[in-house]
Amino acid sequence: MILPRFRRKQQQVLTDPDARARVVIVGGGFGGLQAAKALADAPLQVTLVDRRNHHLFQPLLYQVATAALSPADIAQPIRSVLRGQSNVDVVLAEVDAMDVTAKEIVLSENMGRLPYDYLILAAGAHHAYFGHDEWEPNAPGLKTLEDALDIRRRILTSFEEADREPDLALRKALMTFVVVGGGPTGVEMAGAIAEIARFSLARDFRHIDTRDARVILIEAGTELLAAFPDRLSRHALQDLERLGVDVRFGKPVTAIAPDAVTVGDEIIPANTIVWAAGVQASPLGSSLGVELDRAGRVLVNPDLSVPGHPEIFVIGDLASLKDARGRPLPGVAQVAMQQGAWAAANILRAIEGKPARAFRYRDLGNMATIGRNSAVADIRGLRLTGFVAWLAWAVVHILNLIGFRNRVLVALQWLWDYLTFQRGARLITGSAR
Amino acid sequence: MILPRFRRKQQQVLTDPDARARVVIVGGGFGGLQAAKALADAPLQVTLVDRRNHHLFQPLLYQVATAALSPADIAQPIRSVLRGQSNVDVVLAEVDAMDVTAKEIVLSENMGRLPYDYLILAAGAHHAYFGHDEWEPNAPGLKTLEDALDIRRRILTSFEEADREPDLALRKALMTFVVVGGGPTGVEMAGAIAEIARFSLARDFRHIDTRDARVILIEAGTELLAAFPDRLSRHALQDLERLGVDVRFGKPVTAIAPDAVTVGDEIIPANTIVWAAGVQASPLGSSLGVELDRAGRVLVNPDLSVPGHPEIFVIGDLASLKDARGRPLPGVAQVAMQQGAWAAANILRAIEGKPARAFRYRDLGNMATIGRNSAVADIRGLRLTGFVAWLAWAVVHILNLIGFRNRVLVALQWLWDYLTFQRGARLITGSAR
Repeated sequence: MILPRFRRKQQQVLTDPDARARVVIVGGGFGGLQAAKALADAPLQVTLVDRRNHHLFQPLLYQVATAALSPADIAQPIRSVLRGQSNVDVVLAEVDAMDVTAKEIVLSENMGRLPYDYLILAAGAHHAYFGHDEWEPNAPGLKTLEDALDIRRRILTSFEEADREPDLALRKALMTFVVVGGGPTGVEMAGAIAEIARFSLARDFRHIDTRDARVILIEAGTELLAAFPDRLSRHALQDLERLGVDVRFGKPVTAIAPDAVTVGDEIIPANTIVWAAGVQASPLGSSLGVELDRAGRVLVNPDLSVPGHPEIFVIGDLASLKDARGRPLPGVAQVAMQQGAWAAANILRAIEGKPARAFRYRDLGNMATIGRNSAVADIRGLRLTGFVAWLAWAVVHILNLIGFRNRVLVALQWLWDYLTFQRGARLITGSAR
Repeated sequence: MILPRFRRKQQQVLTDPDARARVVIVGGGFGGLQAAKALADAPLQVTLVDRRNHHLFQPLLYQVATAALSPADIAQPIRSVLRGQSNVDVVLAEVDAMDVTAKEIVLSENMGRLPYDYLILAAGAHHAYFGHDEWEPNAPGLKTLEDALDIRRRILTSFEEADREPDLALRKALMTFVVVGGGPTGVEMAGAIAEIARFSLARDFRHIDTRDARVILIEAGTELLAAFPDRLSRHALQDLERLGVDVRFGKPVTAIAPDAVTVGDEIIPANTIVWAAGVQASPLGSSLGVELDRAGRVLVNPDLSVPGHPEIFVIGDLASLKDARGRPLPGVAQVAMQQGAWAAANILRAIEGKPARAFRYRDLGNMATIGRNSAVADIRGLRLTGFVAWLAWAVVHILNLIGFRNRVLVALQWLWDYLTFQRGARLITGSAR
């Protein structure tokens, strides 16, 4: 249905001698949104396509999954973020594929095609199960708001069911929470679940003591937060163990059933299992017809363009690129944002007839939070732990939220949680699992 | 699974000479929650059963449906509301029926039975389609958070689809919003949708002018807000029309298709249809085996007990009772709350061997809001309109929210919406319709 109007419009443009170049951005995450903003005043026709109407502040998604924040607190309609930029059109649509020969984006549901002169592909990544997609219903990952609400429902429902379960073994399984993966998301999830059990729910149930809940964090490698300096990894481990989290290293998960996870030879009965162990890039990368890495990421040129296609840029979690020291750039918001701005700049240079420049990453630091008063931060060599790191983490995340409203609401709710040990969004909604 | 433990406990109680009477409350809405609170210090064993883990502040549900508030802002876990009352146990379960002969509540999913000495039935009401249940998928009502998020998704998705729809007739249907029913919910929904179209979204789309949206409010009777004095009804009509709402009286809806509603002989193509026209009491009333009125409500004695069962009280939207002047009591929060406290008091009197007292309703007033600076209020004869009524409405609703956190969050978001004309929860989540 979209086809006729877009076609018509594009034809007008093509026959217009003053036609402005068409830039299509696929994805309204950190990278795509930053690219659109960087093109604000350019004489271009920019179209941003996303299948969701909102930009999601993913670093705080675990707080929705653990009932601290509401979905709207960490999401912002893409349209309203970009409403001031008259050269940007936002289209809510799913992209099926790229037709790089025709230079067109193929939209799903017969919504037609969008022609482009320049393309910025920022379609991101999704959690992946290392070839065990059958684990997904038993151990949801954390990428969308729906994922977060699903996990929230599972956590809260487990305590409800435990409270009315007379069988001790079943009750123990209901009060066992397993998080798979010791990266930032896994650490943050495990710490938050432990805090819910120890503090938020402690006085709410009559037949169970929620402080008996077991939170198990499984990391197949040898340390938590592998991207951080060793001292901070060890510190995160200590802080998690102080919260009562049982952290297990060195053995991979070999099976996940609806009510149990198998680690090495051990079967751990557990009602709630959260997957934070791996990501796979968007399948859109494969329709470019270029080389991908094992995680499905596009091996981009140093200027972020795609080999053989100087008009196509791939950024963020979908791009595979090494930094100056030969280490792969991590899949984090600041890489995506810097690449978004860089790709936009390279498009502007191309239009002016200048050569593209190689991307340079400016690492602003790395942070992860474990719980109240507890975080680790590695900011350009400055290594922080404990309350100072936690405060730095809170300030950085509030300042990076989009929109004054969300900043105020999140700050207030954190203050409230901090003072009362409560979590304000303890709703079980949607259908039961 | 719940059976063994509850049975065991109850048997202990029965053989205990100091056994405390068992009160079961079904429903954690305004009535049930108030009843539980009123029994706080009584020497009773109170069990509150609800199928949801949260109490919902229904008067503001339309604000979730129209993207002004988040679900967690108007909901509170029942457990945490009652956590300070050591004589209350909260059970998350669905009630299948009452066995009034055995004096037991039958829980669904083989969760067993709960015996009671006294029962307070506060199971509420749901929207009803006057024998046309097939209309429900096409015109959702507004009773649960899921309903509200469904309606929010429909409203926001309609504008998205209209923006990319080249066909003018289809685009017009996408931008037509029909609300059926001219009571408080219908008036508030129609006003809020009109404000979204006129203000919140006005600058967000490139291919449509959202101010062209048509909002049609259909009332089969001759006036809006029939429970209000005529002058206020007329005032509400004026305010709605000033917002551009097309209010139509005197013709009932005769058919609702997914993309059109038929009013009298006229077929109105519309993509979003909201049902606010009728309610039906919970089917639980029928398992009491006593007389019901046409809407399925239990015809209770003046003391709120059920004929032939002095140990069973029915309150709130599930009860049918007339006031001193012979007018039926309305299905509003203040009736339910006063009845909850009253039923609790009558149980305490029964335990002390005193006779039950007839319920007396103290009408504190009636309010409905149309939009910013616009509401009507009838407070014990004092009739307010415009900004004053709107401010009174806002203050009363904030003060009646449960929890300091929610009061602050709602007040802040309203202030933000008021100053910026924006709505902060404009998320399209869940599966598309």
